[in-house]
Amino acid sequence: MKKLNFLDTGFLLTETRETPMHVGGVSLYTLPEGVNEREFLHGLADNLRNVDEFLSPFGDRLKTGPLGLAGPAYWEPDPALDIDYHIRHSALPKPGRYRELFNLVSRLHGTLLDRNRPLWEIHLIEGLQKRQFAVYSKTHHAAVDGARSIHLARAMLSANPKARMKDSPLSLKLWEDYRATLGREHPADLNDDELRNVADRLKARFDTGVNVYGALKRFTQAWAGRGGPLMLPFLKVPRSSINTSVDGARRFVAQSWPFDRIRTVGKAFDGTFNDAVLAMCAGALRLYLEKHAELPEVSLKAMVPVSVRQEGDIDSSNAVAAISADLATNIEDPGKRFAAIQASVRAGRAFYQNMSPAEVQLFSIALQAPAMLLMPLGLASRLPPYNTVISNVPGIREPMYWNGARLDGSYPASIVTDGIALNITMVSYDQNVDFGIMACRRSVPQVQRLIDYMEQSLVELEDAAGLAKPKVKSKAKRAARKKNTA
Amino acid sequence: MKKLNFLDTGFLLTETRETPMHVGGVSLYTLPEGVNEREFLHGLADNLRNVDEFLSPFGDRLKTGPLGLAGPAYWEPDPALDIDYHIRHSALPKPGRYRELFNLVSRLHGTLLDRNRPLWEIHLIEGLQKRQFAVYSKTHHAAVDGARSIHLARAMLSANPKARMKDSPLSLKLWEDYRATLGREHPADLNDDELRNVADRLKARFDTGVNVYGALKRFTQAWAGRGGPLMLPFLKVPRSSINTSVDGARRFVAQSWPFDRIRTVGKAFDGTFNDAVLAMCAGALRLYLEKHAELPEVSLKAMVPVSVRQEGDIDSSNAVAAISADLATNIEDPGKRFAAIQASVRAGRAFYQNMSPAEVQLFSIALQAPAMLLMPLGLASRLPPYNTVISNVPGIREPMYWNGARLDGSYPASIVTDGIALNITMVSYDQNVDFGIMACRRSVPQVQRLIDYMEQSLVELEDAAGLAKPKVKSKAKRAARKKNTA
Repeated sequence: MKKLNFLDTGFLLTETRETPMHVGGVSLYTLPEGVNEREFLHGLADNLRNVDEFLSPFGDRLKTGPLGLAGPAYWEPDPALDIDYHIRHSALPKPGRYRELFNLVSRLHGTLLDRNRPLWEIHLIEGLQKRQFAVYSKTHHAAVDGARSIHLARAMLSANPKARMKDSPLSLKLWEDYRATLGREHPADLNDDELRNVADRLKARFDTGVNVYGALKRFTQAWAGRGGPLMLPFLKVPRSSINTSVDGARRFVAQSWPFDRIRTVGKAFDGTFNDAVLAMCAGALRLYLEKHAELPEVSLKAMVPVSVRQEGDIDSSNAVAAISADLATNIEDPGKRFAAIQASVRAGRAFYQNMSPAEVQLFSIALQAPAMLLMPLGLASRLPPYNTVISNVPGIREPMYWNGARLDGSYPASIVTDGIALNITMVSYDQNVDFGIMACRRSVPQVQRLIDYMEQSLVELEDAAGLAKPKVKSKAKRAARKKNTA
Repeated sequence: MKKLNFLDTGFLLTETRETPMHVGGVSLYTLPEGVNEREFLHGLADNLRNVDEFLSPFGDRLKTGPLGLAGPAYWEPDPALDIDYHIRHSALPKPGRYRELFNLVSRLHGTLLDRNRPLWEIHLIEGLQKRQFAVYSKTHHAAVDGARSIHLARAMLSANPKARMKDSPLSLKLWEDYRATLGREHPADLNDDELRNVADRLKARFDTGVNVYGALKRFTQAWAGRGGPLMLPFLKVPRSSINTSVDGARRFVAQSWPFDRIRTVGKAFDGTFNDAVLAMCAGALRLYLEKHAELPEVSLKAMVPVSVRQEGDIDSSNAVAAISADLATNIEDPGKRFAAIQASVRAGRAFYQNMSPAEVQLFSIALQAPAMLLMPLGLASRLPPYNTVISNVPGIREPMYWNGARLDGSYPASIVTDGIALNITMVSYDQNVDFGIMACRRSVPQVQRLIDYMEQSLVELEDAAGLAKPKVKSKAKRAARKKNTA
């Protein structure tokens, strides 16, 4: 039995009916030529079920003593694991557009996982158009973190369309095979245990065990007052309609944009890909607030993970620190807005250069735990330390296949909490960047409009940079256009 | 704003992730000839949405003060009711058998309703075979009780296949039209407010307001020790595998049997239809426990609602009292088992003849609240006052239509709680009795086998009574046979 660390326990303690603490995503695949959808999906399900020994945490359930989560908690193997409970077949009502898919994913993401069982579900979803199918997965944040999720996705995918897996992606065997192939290719990768141990080290450092929340709070407050004007989120974060209490219902939308198109904007402004992503989101948020709510006079702030090891290395798989980025939503001119965002991100990076490795590690933890960071501050919905979370996760930059089915896109589905009713997470994949937007259904009405505003914002940036409009639009974009006008 | 009474609040207070307190059901319909499934279902959804003023409680959400549910709670109109959240389109994966339907209903019934919104959902489900579609609905027990549910179903259905509704079944207008047509036809019907007021009267009688649970506990204990040997459930209820703690996942199965077939068995043993239903369930439970668990030496007991007004009136729409029926699962001979069950039910009925109307009313309340009855006893999973709940709800005895779609069957989906991991509820409809079986997925494995055992038990009873085997089997039965062997 493995004991849960304080961070994992925190995700369970802070979870409510209104704020489920699971992360996941939806992936789109195209069926290989000539296969029957039903047979192929049942084959995938059979493959997923083919497990001798589960990779942790997929075979483990939560075990607590008489004190419940107030006492020590452990992961223990589930002796009666009911695999059919976890691997599910679902279908979309006709006409099976992305709209119907997003509706289903929104509902699935809004329900709690069963704490009496291993804390994950995988849904194989049929009924999409054009020989596509979807896979929605959710895993409790107490059981898996972002880094591990990406490794898992990599372990189950192959660049070879002819490759077929024998072992389940949930099996220890496949994971070990995958780790063996990694070799020294990614020496900087922290494995799951290493990441989690940071939390325990921090616990030892800041506290004797009674109140880690308090330590985290003190540390966060020190952070807030230390890095110059841009580092004072508590004083300068506006209230906005996306910073209210949330209820349990979610609305999920997703969309892909060509990676090169966004990077070209970044280069045109002498900035990074990440700067361009933030500018694109900032413009979209400005449009959304103008049309559906009220645009605050003070600029919105976003919690943004940044790479601090190698300046400008957009392909790094280690985004180990978080900054509070100024989204400059109070600036109308797209070029000036880009410059303000860029300056804010640079200031954030500079700030980290003065930090000790242990301090940087704390932010690595904090990044895994947006809710944990907010709850002890007791300020969540009244005075949020930032308005939204925008995460840009580096992914796989070549076409990948799952048992011959081409992965067309992979859209993260993250957590929203009281005070932060909107989360934008994106993963680069092949030639695209796949955006997943998760929002509280009540607090952020018509969130699907954000997709249109993203495109509009990107065009504004292209215009401001004097770039010619792209002539070829991506397939995914055309599909979504159709969806949004349907 | 209408204040919640203590019973309604109790359903909210006792609800956990593992024991959601909503009731509902799944109805099967056949599409009218010549219509397109998608268009027809969207038409039904549009009709459901067509509400000027909601019938209570469909437009109301819960409102509590700073004390939460420990303080006073009210129903208040939801000013931003999001009708698309409540009325949902779903689909079954291929091949769209009842098996896929039951899987979906099991999942939907295991998730909690969103307490920030009116506490109901209606799912229109496409993808069934043979031009059938399904409707799954769930409503929190704090918001609606069994009696009201049946009235609602009646209000939306018509015996005329050509009838089309303008107003939504959720609208106050349709409800008032329906009540007007009832006239003096059902003078004994208690309306919702009348039923609920009983709870408040009881509260005034037993307690000044502080501890109604305590009063209910004292009363229940008095009941347990009062009616002779058959009325001592706490002393004579065995432990069994269906009387354990439950987790949040459910397994739902359903099946129809011809009403006349069951009634013929009852008559052959000089008993009622209800006696025959209990004997059929008892035989099935005996088979299930023998093959999948351990058959206790002491007979199982079931909480059973019975009509106490008119002895033998099986068509009464008022089942106003509950008895703890001996299911005689320790008796191998089906005929002797029937006799033992019958004696137990007669003793139960006789017991009520000595009760005051107020006492009978208490059981009417208790019947609505199996969880409420158990929780204050603090005995739920260790020493349950009965092993299962078997409810036989009189329904409509002629073919009914919803906007031209024939209702083929209507299967209740009820509540399981700690200690009572299995609930069998049945509704008579047209020529059939529609059984809905809800079970905890973990505690009652392979619950689908109960359907086969029900048939086997019925055949045993027919054999014991010397009845010839029925030559014509119902369509629904054949379909389910096919399903069970698939």
